[in-house]
Amino acid sequence: MVGASSSSVVNVYPLANYTFGTKEPKMEKDTSVADRLARMKVNYMKEGMRTSVEAILLVQEHNHPHILLLQIGNTFCKLPGGRLKPGENEIDGLKRKLCSKLAVNSPSFPPNWQVGECVAVWWRPNFETVMYPYCPPHITKPKECKKLFIVHLTEREYFAVPRNLKLLAVPLFELYDNVQRYGPVISTIPQQLSRFQFNMVSS
Amino acid sequence: MVGASSSSVVNVYPLANYTFGTKEPKMEKDTSVADRLARMKVNYMKEGMRTSVEAILLVQEHNHPHILLLQIGNTFCKLPGGRLKPGENEIDGLKRKLCSKLAVNSPSFPPNWQVGECVAVWWRPNFETVMYPYCPPHITKPKECKKLFIVHLTEREYFAVPRNLKLLAVPLFELYDNVQRYGPVISTIPQQLSRFQFNMVSS
Repeated sequence: MVGASSSSVVNVYPLANYTFGTKEPKMEKDTSVADRLARMKVNYMKEGMRTSVEAILLVQEHNHPHILLLQIGNTFCKLPGGRLKPGENEIDGLKRKLCSKLAVNSPSFPPNWQVGECVAVWWRPNFETVMYPYCPPHITKPKECKKLFIVHLTEREYFAVPRNLKLLAVPLFELYDNVQRYGPVISTIPQQLSRFQFNMVSS
Repeated sequence: MVGASSSSVVNVYPLANYTFGTKEPKMEKDTSVADRLARMKVNYMKEGMRTSVEAILLVQEHNHPHILLLQIGNTFCKLPGGRLKPGENEIDGLKRKLCSKLAVNSPSFPPNWQVGECVAVWWRPNFETVMYPYCPPHITKPKECKKLFIVHLTEREYFAVPRNLKLLAVPLFELYDNVQRYGPVISTIPQQLSRFQFNMVSS
């Protein structure tokens, strides 16, 4: 009987607990979707299936959970994370990516993020934008596997956001059923998180 | 660090391993959505928030996971499960509902279903059909909480299906992104299950 996992508790602290600064810009490697898919293909030839890891960072406002998203330009939003190096451990790789995307580059502010539960896994069967939450039948060589993890924040943190990006706290009710704006991966995060009990800490 | 839960393994056996018989019809309590919501309201006055529990039963065909759904009439599909009695334990209640919906009523065939992980929780804020994977802000008295559990099947089982219902094995790729046919709860089961590693047992 493993039903006990139904009561996983996640502490969620107010957005106001966290401090946000800026750091040098972190440019996207690709300037178009076509470039991105072409680079993916080249990397696949060299290194095989791409594995990427992304973080779900939770804060609360008005007792409702919000997720931190990085906004590029005026519309495109993504979770902080990125591609693992060949052979790299998922947890280590996610911490490395979070440091590069969201931590101040100073040894006096070491981030204290705890990589927690894997909540979703998505598969890219071809060098195309479409992904599925399962490896489709007859696909023996998927091109990418993307894993989403809850990353537990401590009560206070200092985030340093690259100057060309914006960090947004987006409520679950805004993500839910909003595939047009957030895409299939981010818009179903509310469903993935529904099994958790959120402990809304008030200050 | 609880990242280990990313590798939860679920054994999935071929559909052909299972035997399906029939039993006496099990009629729906309501003949319309309006009747259903009215009955919900009466029960809420007597017993408070309704808690319902539903089972995700997995089988495989062609190495792809399928879910068992009960079909009523020609279109409407639902997961096996139902409402808990006031004070009833979730696991016991789900087993009781599975017995009434899917087991042969004979002490010589005791079902051996293992209630596993809770994979999703849905909330009904009002006496209406719409549900959300979170309790919406400002809703202090939700009317229903529905929990979905994986129920682990053993290698062989005998199911007795009420004569007025059909038991279907529906592949994940058919459910995914098919809210029109299956509704918001069932159509996002592929996302909820994506974090599990399925061990496809071949006979």
